[in-house]
Amino acid sequence: MRLSRYLLPTLKETPAEAQIASHRLMLRAGLIRQEAAGIYSWLPAGLRVLRKIEAIVREEMNRAGALELLMPTLQLADLWRESGRYDAYGPEMLRIRDRHERELLYGPTNEDMVTALFRAHVKSYRALPMNLYHVQWKFRDEQRPRFGVMRGREFLMKDAYSFDLDEAGARRSYQRMFVAYLRTFARMGIRAIPMRAETGPIGGDLSHEFLVLAQTGESAVYCDRAVLDLPIPGADTDYDGDLEPVVRQWTTPYAATEDVHDGERFEREVPAERRVHTRGIEVGQVFYFGTKYSEPMKALVAGAEGGERPVHGGSYGIGVSRLVGAIIEAGHDEAGIVWPDAVAPFNVGIVDLDPDDAQVDAACTQLQASLQAQGLDVLHDDTGERAGVKFARMDLLGLPWQLIVGRRGLAGGTVELKRRASGERLELPLADAVARIVRSSH
Amino acid sequence: MRLSRYLLPTLKETPAEAQIASHRLMLRAGLIRQEAAGIYSWLPAGLRVLRKIEAIVREEMNRAGALELLMPTLQLADLWRESGRYDAYGPEMLRIRDRHERELLYGPTNEDMVTALFRAHVKSYRALPMNLYHVQWKFRDEQRPRFGVMRGREFLMKDAYSFDLDEAGARRSYQRMFVAYLRTFARMGIRAIPMRAETGPIGGDLSHEFLVLAQTGESAVYCDRAVLDLPIPGADTDYDGDLEPVVRQWTTPYAATEDVHDGERFEREVPAERRVHTRGIEVGQVFYFGTKYSEPMKALVAGAEGGERPVHGGSYGIGVSRLVGAIIEAGHDEAGIVWPDAVAPFNVGIVDLDPDDAQVDAACTQLQASLQAQGLDVLHDDTGERAGVKFARMDLLGLPWQLIVGRRGLAGGTVELKRRASGERLELPLADAVARIVRSSH
Repeated sequence: MRLSRYLLPTLKETPAEAQIASHRLMLRAGLIRQEAAGIYSWLPAGLRVLRKIEAIVREEMNRAGALELLMPTLQLADLWRESGRYDAYGPEMLRIRDRHERELLYGPTNEDMVTALFRAHVKSYRALPMNLYHVQWKFRDEQRPRFGVMRGREFLMKDAYSFDLDEAGARRSYQRMFVAYLRTFARMGIRAIPMRAETGPIGGDLSHEFLVLAQTGESAVYCDRAVLDLPIPGADTDYDGDLEPVVRQWTTPYAATEDVHDGERFEREVPAERRVHTRGIEVGQVFYFGTKYSEPMKALVAGAEGGERPVHGGSYGIGVSRLVGAIIEAGHDEAGIVWPDAVAPFNVGIVDLDPDDAQVDAACTQLQASLQAQGLDVLHDDTGERAGVKFARMDLLGLPWQLIVGRRGLAGGTVELKRRASGERLELPLADAVARIVRSSH
Repeated sequence: MRLSRYLLPTLKETPAEAQIASHRLMLRAGLIRQEAAGIYSWLPAGLRVLRKIEAIVREEMNRAGALELLMPTLQLADLWRESGRYDAYGPEMLRIRDRHERELLYGPTNEDMVTALFRAHVKSYRALPMNLYHVQWKFRDEQRPRFGVMRGREFLMKDAYSFDLDEAGARRSYQRMFVAYLRTFARMGIRAIPMRAETGPIGGDLSHEFLVLAQTGESAVYCDRAVLDLPIPGADTDYDGDLEPVVRQWTTPYAATEDVHDGERFEREVPAERRVHTRGIEVGQVFYFGTKYSEPMKALVAGAEGGERPVHGGSYGIGVSRLVGAIIEAGHDEAGIVWPDAVAPFNVGIVDLDPDDAQVDAACTQLQASLQAQGLDVLHDDTGERAGVKFARMDLLGLPWQLIVGRRGLAGGTVELKRRASGERLELPLADAVARIVRSSH
């Protein structure tokens, strides 16, 4: 993509309304635009990040055996009356009346709807276990939206719902999602720690939050340093096999959010030098809630020996749009964003130092084509601005690799390759620079 | 995908509420589920079709130089007051009040929002031409939603918006979209005919609707048979070049919807044997509306000689969710859906006639792996149902290819390959069947 034909409205000034780094940087780097309180447009570069995160989430959900469908954004109020949640949900629910005065709502979550869908179409234990998920926009009418996409009102969530014949099956489904989540976040280049958590308005008796550790996090967290170095399950994980050992390994070291923190146990179990007390950003949460929805909504399945019983359920959320902010909170410096390779809007930024020089332009165009042929996304800054402006913009946007191409270097057959995260710069022949980027990106 | 682990709730009976073939077949084939009047969930197989259509739309928009972003579903009412459309839009607009009594609406289209976005970020002619698009859920509160996804209330639309310095530039942008649309629909295996159309609530003085000819279409259409055989522009189309000849070729033969039909001209220009009078389903519409939004909203750009002037705009919609219905209207028979290869939920259905036989199961699993390794999507019916039930379900679902695998054939090293569209059946060695499918799918 040539920057001269792109829309990347970067800002020099720090927007006054943004209180945290990710919000500031998303506005400054031209990733989002606020349309109303807590409601954002995703500009082209921001959307690229969102879609890459979404793709990783989808791949790992599919790998774990979940089936993707898509429920609508609007729901009937009567559905929520059936589950008993309509009145309980409070003012965060956006309630709507259509032209015929029918009561609708903009879904903040989908336990009720998916339970009705399951009830209509699945009658027998033979279809179980089943896990249905979607990636859909949700709305929660926050009293005071802030922190950009981290606490927006319209937000993109992946929510999965498992259905099992009994509690033992439901716990295996829970473990599948637990393991899938470990893989999902690791693939995005962040470390999200599962912590025991309260179940809140979803209900149930077992829940873990996955948190990215960051000083700007909304929750205080306490954990054993040991949990920071545990191995991530591999792509060859057998989701039909026994996942209990992995889950046990990850849930044995102490790790809890402040809501359920047990100070005495923390001090008893964790040696002083391994105690971590910091803050965390929630990026996912998993719940087991048993028959909380299936009983009132009569979502029954026939067991192997006949006789109908309410299905056991769990739900599993990942904040897809929130992750964009969380990843920036976990990776930035004074110059701007430092994207992990897997979710960067472009893998490589080419800085053309002499865009009026036909040979330099041709070299940049050729580099772009070579990299794209290897499946990499490239942003080619072909604008006529000063080199300093271009460097600052590339650092702000935070692409993992920068290729700096000028008349002088080309005369000697070289370009400069810069790694954004380390700041390391190397003068290399063109082909070597391409090879090095390709090698480290696959 | 093994059917035993999938959610494909097919129906034997024809649902009473469905008046047209696509609605009946989408419900019967387990593609959608109604959640409220005009509001649907997309079940796994239906979502696969929706995503394939969306991917084709996206590829062709990008090829034509448009930039993807994503605007939110909810918009501020004040934005629509600024453009002067808020009161004009009528009861189809879903108006919402949030917890602070701020007026929002669920966007039915995005001219107003994208004009404000453009105004905020683009100031100079040097950024032009620019075309911004998104694929987002929209809501129109139809008085009487019906025909399934063909006239739903919550629907998925691709809407693109072009910005140019003057009318001549805007007409070139219009032509780019016109040509991209010809390619987009053709790639989905349907023929959509551009016809002169009224501009309706979007405004402007130039518009074409793209219609798929079908007896169940909502509009009467009149055209010259010559338009049915025109060549589709190739993937190598130069969108920076002169597209006028292509557009002229497609707009010269008479083609008009009833709203703008000129009976005298039709009879004068079109020889009787070439006159087509049928019905059509609108799947896309393109508009040039000049400064209709940029003037009231003050979206100004500086020209090359200085001086600010309102930008010239056009908008370009494709009904992504509606297309699922339109493609079925154009391709079905008494047994069910007949999907074009490019948008079928799966390319191949494997019918295992003896799922209890380990050898047959192994052969099916191997066939599935071979086909998937070639990038094809496969549904493997491993259920224990009768052969007749399985055949009927595969025909109903309409996958382009069926591979029928049984003990008897395997003993002789063969499987049966059926082409859904023609009904042609061939007994072939396994590898030949795979090769034949792969060859015709790429």
